[in-house]
This record gives sequence, structure tokens and C-alpha cells, in this order.
Amino acid sequence: MTKPSWKPSGLVTLLTDFGTADPYVGMMKGAILSQQPRAVIVDLCHGVPPQDVRVGAWFLRHSLPYFPEGTVHVVVVDPGVGSGRRLLVAEDRGLAFLAPDNGLLGPVLSSEARVFELDSARFARAGASRTFHGRDILAPAAAAIAGGLEPARAGVAEVEPLGGVELPRPRRNADGSLESEVVLADRYGNLVLSVGAEDLEGGPAGWVIESDERTIPLRGTYAEAASGELLAVVDSYGAIEIAVRDGSAAARLGLRPGATVVLRRRA
Amino acid sequence: MTKPSWKPSGLVTLLTDFGTADPYVGMMKGAILSQQPRAVIVDLCHGVPPQDVRVGAWFLRHSLPYFPEGTVHVVVVDPGVGSGRRLLVAEDRGLAFLAPDNGLLGPVLSSEARVFELDSARFARAGASRTFHGRDILAPAAAAIAGGLEPARAGVAEVEPLGGVELPRPRRNADGSLESEVVLADRYGNLVLSVGAEDLEGGPAGWVIESDERTIPLRGTYAEAASGELLAVVDSYGAIEIAVRDGSAAARLGLRPGATVVLRRRA
Amino acid sequence: MTKPSWKPSGLVTLLTDFGTADPYVGMMKGAILSQQPRAVIVDLCHGVPPQDVRVGAWFLRHSLPYFPEGTVHVVVVDPGVGSGRRLLVAEDRGLAFLAPDNGLLGPVLSSEARVFELDSARFARAGASRTFHGRDILAPAAAAIAGGLEPARAGVAEVEPLGGVELPRPRRNADGSLESEVVLADRYGNLVLSVGAEDLEGGPAGWVIESDERTIPLRGTYAEAASGELLAVVDSYGAIEIAVRDGSAAARLGLRPGATVVLRRRA
Repeated sequence: MTKPSWKPSGLVTLLTDFGTADPYVGMMKGAILSQQPRAVIVDLCHGVPPQDVRVGAWFLRHSLPYFPEGTVHVVVVDPGVGSGRRLLVAEDRGLAFLAPDNGLLGPVLSSEARVFELDSARFARAGASRTFHGRDILAPAAAAIAGGLEPARAGVAEVEPLGGVELPRPRRNADGSLESEVVLADRYGNLVLSVGAEDLEGGPAGWVIESDERTIPLRGTYAEAASGELLAVVDSYGAIEIAVRDGSAAARLGLRPGATVVLRRRA
Repeated sequence: MTKPSWKPSGLVTLLTDFGTADPYVGMMKGAILSQQPRAVIVDLCHGVPPQDVRVGAWFLRHSLPYFPEGTVHVVVVDPGVGSGRRLLVAEDRGLAFLAPDNGLLGPVLSSEARVFELDSARFARAGASRTFHGRDILAPAAAAIAGGLEPARAGVAEVEPLGGVELPRPRRNADGSLESEVVLADRYGNLVLSVGAEDLEGGPAGWVIESDERTIPLRGTYAEAASGELLAVVDSYGAIEIAVRDGSAAARLGLRPGATVVLRRRA
Repeated sequence: MTKPSWKPSGLVTLLTDFGTADPYVGMMKGAILSQQPRAVIVDLCHGVPPQDVRVGAWFLRHSLPYFPEGTVHVVVVDPGVGSGRRLLVAEDRGLAFLAPDNGLLGPVLSSEARVFELDSARFARAGASRTFHGRDILAPAAAAIAGGLEPARAGVAEVEPLGGVELPRPRRNADGSLESEVVLADRYGNLVLSVGAEDLEGGPAGWVIESDERTIPLRGTYAEAASGELLAVVDSYGAIEIAVRDGSAAARLGLRPGATVVLRRRA
């Protein structure tokens, strides 16, 4: 048996598709703070499109580097709530994770992760609902883990999580070009692609993006384009992103998440 | 005279109709933390529809169970700001409440509550506005109460709050069916009804909802319906809610808050 | 050399144009708390219209009075990110400021402010992006300053910030009337004007606003108007604001930020 390795920082993040119109996030915070008053809760994001497990995985995966060891990441994107789907607790690289077993953690956890089925019965509030396990089971579990409980000890058995969700990877064509998917459009209308800077041989500057009749150059930063000009950059996720300087690429190109574009070496 | 019973937890919640586009919530937090740096402030919700006192009451009432004793709940849904309407401070079941006297607290407080007119002059910031008492009077009062001031001692006189707002109750028809109102539609387009599970004799499973020509079954959870199917469940508020699995019931049925549906025993 | 005057309160505010759909704000909070776990972070507002430096300046300037000395105000409205634009750190009236050098701080800082070019190289995270200096440079700097680092010592050299942005001032016509601009429309559709109560000789009650054919009276508070009636008040910013009781002035008048209205002494 390994020695306990869990050193909580007291930090708990919440990642949900709840939006901000309803008090669901506030209820979860109350449930956590009732039990663990010294927890520091951070809203990672509540703007995951409803039930969009893939965007949730993208957000969480790319946010991990900014949080300290000992953080408890709680995910409530949960289309299967109330069904037989399990709840998971995981420990990975000094972090704890609580999430429904719907594939979201797949692209987030490393190969070193230990994943357990959460002992839901142990953490469930009296009168727990069948529609809001985030508040009624995950929040109390997060409070306990933020207070020092080993993630492994919050579980009933080590399990293999559902594979399900994969973040799209670019597909290499015979001519060396890459087909890539639009993963999401952010508030500015920037289109985030499923390509990282590291996928572009020789560096981003040697590539262009083709979409319909247009050829969009890779630039170092937004400011290298003129106002209103289309460009692509390595973005805040470390991914390639299509943008319009001072405008919306989503509106200009009429592209939405799921659309495909081609990246090609500059002629 | 009773002994002081107020034991603050340091937790302050904010429930407003401010939305998140403006810095009004941020200003309130600054006003509280300036005076009480150790307060822990939770955004209960800022998405109350503008001036919708009834939805505010619904949100607060259903959120109370998730917060610990000693919490100060501050409500700023305040269509009458600047008029002669009083501000209230209340103590109820170990919780403190600060709110305009507009009926919102009616469905929230228990019969044990003690309600006082707030001593506004005592708490008003220098140069207090006539348009933002939440920031200029309630926030300083919340800071003081979160720091240990007895709610009763923040008031000038015990008063009877305005009755005004009532959360709608289902109406029983002669044939045993129940007429119920849609209270609100949440982010997912779920339609929350003014009926609790406890109102349905024999348990929810024995009932259906009728709306136009449709008959909607009560289910145990969303996951019992097929994708795209209409269903109803006991929801996160403990209320009956009409939903579409992986979709929006509000869009499907064209119903909005205030609409009426009928619940009937399953044939 | 002056003695160190910086006494951090531990409070850090964030003012951005990020909205809430993406995890950008959450990442910034993680970056700050990773380094300074005891910081208390307040969302001043993330609803600044994209790249709208002027509205950002308005929000920050009018929020300062509500925060205690020792607060670190971090601004990420940054259309020039990745260009040669400098990052600034300033100390003013016991407060610290971190922001891109794009003019936003101009209307915020007093004449006593000391402004420095931030030592970006010192604070930049390993692998800092070229698109998100808020997270990769300003957040670590904010953590250090909230932890006690003198703002002046976070800079490389005292500089003159860009003047650029000015909050519009009313223009006095020959007949004594004032032309004023709509600065912003808030969630309620209230139209905030670039006129303060102090600009209206003899007090607001002696003035009216003219817009198209309409004459709008200045009132003491919203509640002095009938439901649906147009009015103007001294608002939560201390500015004159056009409102519709229980409605939206922006919708009623069809005015947007940038529009001009005239204030005239009551006949």
C-alpha cells in the first residue's frame, strides 16, 4: 500500500454547463462551504454548452496548468444524471477530480491517473435529488477531499473510466496538408482548431489555413493583422485559432464548431 | 430579553437581478470586503429577471438548505429603490436576511422569523445614492452582521413585512386534477412548475401532465426518456419540471413562465 | 528615496472583456492563487464590451471608491496584446494597478500616480503565450504585489502612460445647454450619460433632457415616475442616466452608446 500522497491546497474548481441564469452554481458552493468553510472555490467556467462533454474536456485539460497541486476539480457536465452512470473520483499528478463517468475525463487524465468509482452512498446528502448529483453528491465529496480525505479513499473500487470522448486530432492528407476541426468559438468569435502549434512542422509561420476560397496566414499575434483582417495565431489554449482583428471570425466565415478547415504549408 | 443567538459563519450570499454585464456586483463585494475583509461572499445568482421579485423568492427559498447557519443572505431585487419602501433585516433559523421590503422575503421566512426595519441611516455610506441601496446601505449592513452584529440590533423596530409576493400553489380541480403554473424556465429550457413532489398523491409516478394535446409522463430522471422525448421529473428544486431529453421544453411547447398546465392521475 | 508605502490588503480585482462563456477568467484566478493562495479575488466585471477601453475605464474609475487601500486592480482589456505595447504597473492613492498601456488607466489615475513599465520578463510564466498576457504576465505580477511586492519594484522604469482614452465630457452650448454622450447602456437598458450631477448648475432637479421630440425630466429616483414613464436620475455611477420605470430606455429611445442628447434648464 502506498503512503498517502494527497496534499490538499484547499482550492476547489467548478466546471459546469449551468450558465449563470439560475442558482445552481450558488447551491453547489453552499453545499461545499457548509462542510468545508475554508475551501476556496474558483469558477473555472459555467459556460460549457449544455451537455457538451467534449468542450468541457477541452476547457478542463487546458486549464490544469494554471492550478496548483492539491486542487480539487469538480466537473458537472452530466447528461446522464440519474441514470446508472457512475460517478468518478480520480487522483492524477497531485490533483483530484470528481466527475460523472461520461468520458469527459478521458482527454484530461494522464496515464498515471488512478480512477475510482465514487462512494456515492457515503457522500449523498439526505434527500439527494435524482437530477443534481453535482450538488447532492459531488459537492460533499469535494468538501471532504479539499479537507484532506485521500481521493482513493472516497472511492469504492478502482475502475476503468469510459473512453467515449476524444478531443479531435488533425488528420494528415496524402499531400501533407492537415484537416482540422473547429472545436469551439469563443466570446470574440475566435475559432479554436484541433491543431496545436506542435502539429505544424517547421513552425506555425510556415503554414496557412484554407477555408472556402480564402487563404488565411498564420501570424505571431493579433496585432500583426490590420483591423478587420483575417488571421490565425497560436492562441491562449496553445491551439491554432482563426480570428479577425477587431472582429468575429465566426461571423465572417460562417463557421461553427464541427466545421472542417485545411492547413497547408505556405507556397 | 433573549440572549444573543447570532453566530456568524462569515458567509454572505448575494442574490440580485444585476446580471453580469455591469460592475454593480463587484462594487457590492468591494463595499462588503472593505469593512469585513474576512467575509466569504458567494454569488447565489445574479440572473433573476429584472425586478422579478417572485423568481427571486423562488431562488432564495430553494437555496437556503444548502447554506450553513450564520449565513447572511443579501437580496437586491429592488424595483422600489429610492421610494419610501423600507429596508428589512431578519433573523430566521440561525440565518440573517437583508432585503428591500417588497414581499420577496414572504415565501422565504418561517413563522419563527423576527423581522426589523433596517436602521438605514446608521449603515448608509457617506454620499449614498438614491438608486443603489444594495451597495450603499445593505452591503455595509451585511458586513457588520457577518462580523458579529446581531441582526436585531441592526434594526430600528420590529415590523410586519409586506405580504405581496406568493409563490403560486397548484389549484385542485373538482375531478382531482391539479392546475399548475410554470414558475420559470431555466438555462436548459426546462419548465419548472409550482408543484412539489409532495403535492402528488401516491407519488409522482402515478401522474401525467397535460399540455395542449400532449400527455407527458412523470419519470424518475431525465435518462429514462429517449433523446428528444418530452418528460417530467422531480427537479433540483424539488418541484415538478417539464423537460426534453437533450433539448428544450420551453422551445418545444412554446410555454413561458405564467403559463398553466394540468396534472392528472395516470389513467 | 521614499519609504515603502505599499500595504497590500490581499484583495485583487479583475476587470476584463472576457465574458463568462470561456475559462479565461478561471485560468487567471488559478495563476494568481497558485502563487498567492491567500489572495481574495473579486470579479469587478467581465462584461466590458470586447476591446472597449473606454467602457473599461468608466467601470474601473467608478468602482474605485468601493475598494479598500491595498487592493490590486488588474485590467485585461487588451486589443494590442502581443504587439509592442507595454504593460504598466501603477501605484496611486494606496492602490495598485496592472494594465496594458492602452490609455485605459488615463481617466482612472490621479495626478499623484506613479506609473512604471512592468518588468514583463520577470513575471512571465514559462511558455507564456503571445495572446494572453493577462494570465501569463499580469496574473503572476498581481500575485506578487498582493503578497507585498512594492508596485514600483515590479517595474523597470517610470513612464508616462499613453493618453489615448478620455471619458467624454459634456459640451456647453452658447445657450447654456449641455451636449452629452451616452457612455453605455446597462442590463436594464438604462442609458448612462457623460454628465455628473455636479455638472448641472443649481442641481439636477432644475434640468431636463431633450432627445428627438421628447423632454425627459430629472427625478430624484426611479420610483418617482409611473410605470413605463421616461425619466432621468442621478445613477449608481453618480452620472445622469435616462431610464424607463419598469422598462428599457435603450429600447424606447433607440439610442446606443455614442449617441448625443441635450440637457437644458427647465423652462
